[in-house]
Amino acid sequence: MEHPELDPPELIDAPLKECPPVEARVAGFKGAAVSAGIRKDGREDLALIDAGRPVPAAGVFTQNKLAAAPVQVSRRHIASGAARAILGNSGGANAATGGPGLDASLASCRAVGRALGCPAELVLPCSTGVIGQLLDAAKVEAVMPRLAQELSPEGIPAAAGAIMTTDSFRKMARADCVIGGRPVTVLGMAKGAGMIRPDMATMLSFVLTDAAATPEALRAVLGPAAGLSFNRASVDGDTSTNDTLLLLASGAAGGPELTPDSPELVTFARAVTEVCQKLAAMLVADGEGAGHLVRVLVEGAQSDAAARAVCYAIAHSPLCKTAFAGRDPNWGRLLSTAGAESARSGLAFDPAATKLWIGDALIADHGLYTGQEAEELAAQVMKRDRYQVRLELGNGAGRFWVLTSDLDHRYIEINADYRT
Amino acid sequence: MEHPELDPPELIDAPLKECPPVEARVAGFKGAAVSAGIRKDGREDLALIDAGRPVPAAGVFTQNKLAAAPVQVSRRHIASGAARAILGNSGGANAATGGPGLDASLASCRAVGRALGCPAELVLPCSTGVIGQLLDAAKVEAVMPRLAQELSPEGIPAAAGAIMTTDSFRKMARADCVIGGRPVTVLGMAKGAGMIRPDMATMLSFVLTDAAATPEALRAVLGPAAGLSFNRASVDGDTSTNDTLLLLASGAAGGPELTPDSPELVTFARAVTEVCQKLAAMLVADGEGAGHLVRVLVEGAQSDAAARAVCYAIAHSPLCKTAFAGRDPNWGRLLSTAGAESARSGLAFDPAATKLWIGDALIADHGLYTGQEAEELAAQVMKRDRYQVRLELGNGAGRFWVLTSDLDHRYIEINADYRT
Repeated sequence: MEHPELDPPELIDAPLKECPPVEARVAGFKGAAVSAGIRKDGREDLALIDAGRPVPAAGVFTQNKLAAAPVQVSRRHIASGAARAILGNSGGANAATGGPGLDASLASCRAVGRALGCPAELVLPCSTGVIGQLLDAAKVEAVMPRLAQELSPEGIPAAAGAIMTTDSFRKMARADCVIGGRPVTVLGMAKGAGMIRPDMATMLSFVLTDAAATPEALRAVLGPAAGLSFNRASVDGDTSTNDTLLLLASGAAGGPELTPDSPELVTFARAVTEVCQKLAAMLVADGEGAGHLVRVLVEGAQSDAAARAVCYAIAHSPLCKTAFAGRDPNWGRLLSTAGAESARSGLAFDPAATKLWIGDALIADHGLYTGQEAEELAAQVMKRDRYQVRLELGNGAGRFWVLTSDLDHRYIEINADYRT
Repeated sequence: MEHPELDPPELIDAPLKECPPVEARVAGFKGAAVSAGIRKDGREDLALIDAGRPVPAAGVFTQNKLAAAPVQVSRRHIASGAARAILGNSGGANAATGGPGLDASLASCRAVGRALGCPAELVLPCSTGVIGQLLDAAKVEAVMPRLAQELSPEGIPAAAGAIMTTDSFRKMARADCVIGGRPVTVLGMAKGAGMIRPDMATMLSFVLTDAAATPEALRAVLGPAAGLSFNRASVDGDTSTNDTLLLLASGAAGGPELTPDSPELVTFARAVTEVCQKLAAMLVADGEGAGHLVRVLVEGAQSDAAARAVCYAIAHSPLCKTAFAGRDPNWGRLLSTAGAESARSGLAFDPAATKLWIGDALIADHGLYTGQEAEELAAQVMKRDRYQVRLELGNGAGRFWVLTSDLDHRYIEINADYRT
C-alpha cells in the first residue's frame, strides 16, 4: 500500500484548549483508571485498557538512547505482534532508573497479568512524568484488583485522563470508516505538553480500533501515520525517553483481516492518520505556554528534506515562537531563520526568490517588506488561535509542513520548577 | 602558527550584568558617538572608530544567507586587507532591505570618507536592530561632520555604547601583552543580547590593537579566536543576518609586523582570544532572560564533534534552560537531551557509562540518580551566577564546551514584542 499523502489537518476554528466531544467507545475494548498514589496530588494516575484477549498490535517508540524501562519492556512485548492490555501511569517516567526500573515495569505487567488472567508478556506498560522517578510496583500491585474490576466499555475516557501530566485537557479523537461494508471505528487518546520541542516531553498515544487487521497491516499503517502527525510536531529521532504510540485492533467489527496487501487498507490508514493528526494538533495546541497553533508550511524548496529542515528551524526558533506569542508579524526573523538554516544545512536560499505569507497576508515578497497594509492584515491573522505561516523558497518543488506553538510565559512557569 | 587551545574562560565570581572596568584606550584609534535619530528613543545610535590612516584589518562575518547590506559591503571592503574606519549603528539592521539597503550602506561609507578624507572603501559599516529596517543614509550624512569632529582617543567607550540594542550594559574587554619587548594592547567591544540562540541576535564586536601585524596574521588569529569564544556561545553557521567581528591593527606599538610565521604571533593570538572570550562571556551573561551563565562541558565523547553536538543540544534545549532558570538540578532532562541528540546524530551513548556533575556535585552516576545529598549540593551550585555542568560520556577522548544562559520570563517579555 502507498500511504495516502494527506493534506495537513485543517486549521479548524475551535477553542485551542478543548477537545471536541467524541463518542468514546470502541467495540472490543474496556478501560478504567484509579488513583494508585503514584502522583502526589491524589489524581487518578493509573490507566488500564483491556482487549479481553490477545489482539494484533503495533507500536512506534522513542528513538532516545535513554529509552525508559517501560519502553524497553513494551518494545519487547509487542515484538510478538499481539497484546491484550495497556497499562499507563502518570506521576513518574521510570526512565534512567536502571535495573530496578526494569524490574518495576515487569512487576507491574505481572500484576496486570494476574488480574486479567493472561501472560505478563501481553501487557504493554507506559509511563510518563519526571525522569529518574522509579515506578513503585507495590503501589501498582495494590490497586490492580480494583482497577481490573472497574474495567468497562465506558471507561476509556477515564484511562485517557489518568495519563495526563501538565496537559490542560483530555485528548481523544475518533474517525469512522467503512471497510468491506462494515462500519469500523478508530478511537485514540494522547497526552502531551512540553510543547516547545514536543519530542522532549513525553508523548503517549493509544489508538484502538475494532477493525480486523494483521500485525503487519497495523505496522504498515502506524509508522506513516505517525510521520504525518506526531512527527510533524517534533524533530524526528529527537524524542523523549518515553514517547510511545500504540495501535491495537480488536477485530470486533468483523470481516476478513486487513493485510498489507488489502486494497482497503488505505481506507483504514486514512482513519488512523486522521485520528493521529487530530491528537497531534491537540498536543501542540495544549503545549506548555502555547497560546496559538501555527502551521508552518514551506514550499518551493529544492527537496522535501530541505523544506523540512527549514520548517523545523522556524518551528523551533525561540525568536520566531516569541514573535508568534506577541502577535508580531516579524517577517525578518522568519526569513533570517530560514537563511541561517539554509547556511547551516547547505541548502539553496535566495532571498530575492522568497515569498512569505502569514495567513493570507503576503508580508514579504522577493525577500522584501510589502508594507503597512500587509502588516496590519498579518497582525489580524495572528490574533487567531490557529493560523498558517507559508514560506515559498522559489527553488523547486520540495514541500513540508509542521505544527508548532508559540512560546509565552507559561512555558517557563511550568518548566522552571517542574519537579518541585 | 598553531592556535593555542586555551582552556575555557574562568567562571569568575563577579556580577553577571556588569562589565569589569577597563582602561578603554588603545594607541592609534579614536572613537565617537552621536545620536543620529535612527533610534526612536534619542539614545546615541551612531558610532565611529577611526585609525587615522589605512591599517591592516580582518573580519569574520555571519554565514546567514540573508546577510545584511552592511555585511555585504564590509566583506567587500575588508577584502583588501586594509581599513581605516568602522561605522556602527543601532536602531535598524538594514537587513532584507535589497538594493535600497545596499545603496544606503554605501552612501553612509561615502559620508564617512568625505568627513575623514579617505576613500569610502576604507570604511567598514555595521548595523544592528530590527531586520527589514532600511538605514536612512540622510540621517547618517547629516550628523557625520559632528561625529568626525568628536573623534578622540577617549571616545572608544561612547562608540561601544552606541551599538547597544537590548544589552543591559556596555561590553568592553582588554588584554595586554609584550611582543618583541614592546607592550601591546588589545581592546575589544561587543554588543549582543537575544541570547537563547545568540547566533540569531546580532552580535557585533570590534577589536582594536596597537600591535603591528599583516592582514594575513590578523586573519590567522581572528578565525580561531572566534572559534574559541563567540562561536562557543552559538551554533556555528547558524548566525544572524548581521553578525560581524572585526580586528584592526594600528601598529602604533611599533616593532616589526607580525606575520603568520612570527613565533610571537601566538602571544598576540592569546591576547585576542582572551578579549574575545571575555566579550563572549559577557554576551551570554547579558542574554535576554539570562539569570545564570552556565558552561556546558562534555567529555569522554567519541570525538570532539560528538562532544560539540551534545553540548549544543543541552545549551539550546528550552527544557534544560528553564531548569537552569528554576535552579532545578533536573539531571534527567540533561541526560535525556544527550540521549536524544545521540540518537539524532548517530552517536554512541550508553547511559550506564555516563556521569553528570553540576558544579562539584555528582548528580548522576552510571546514568542513575546519586541521591538527595548530591541534589542539595547541586541546588546550592545552581544559585550561583556562574557554574558548570559537566557530562562524561565514557566513550572516548572527545571534548567540547560552550557557554549558555538560562531562559526566564524576561526573554519572552523582550522578544514577544521586540519591534513595537
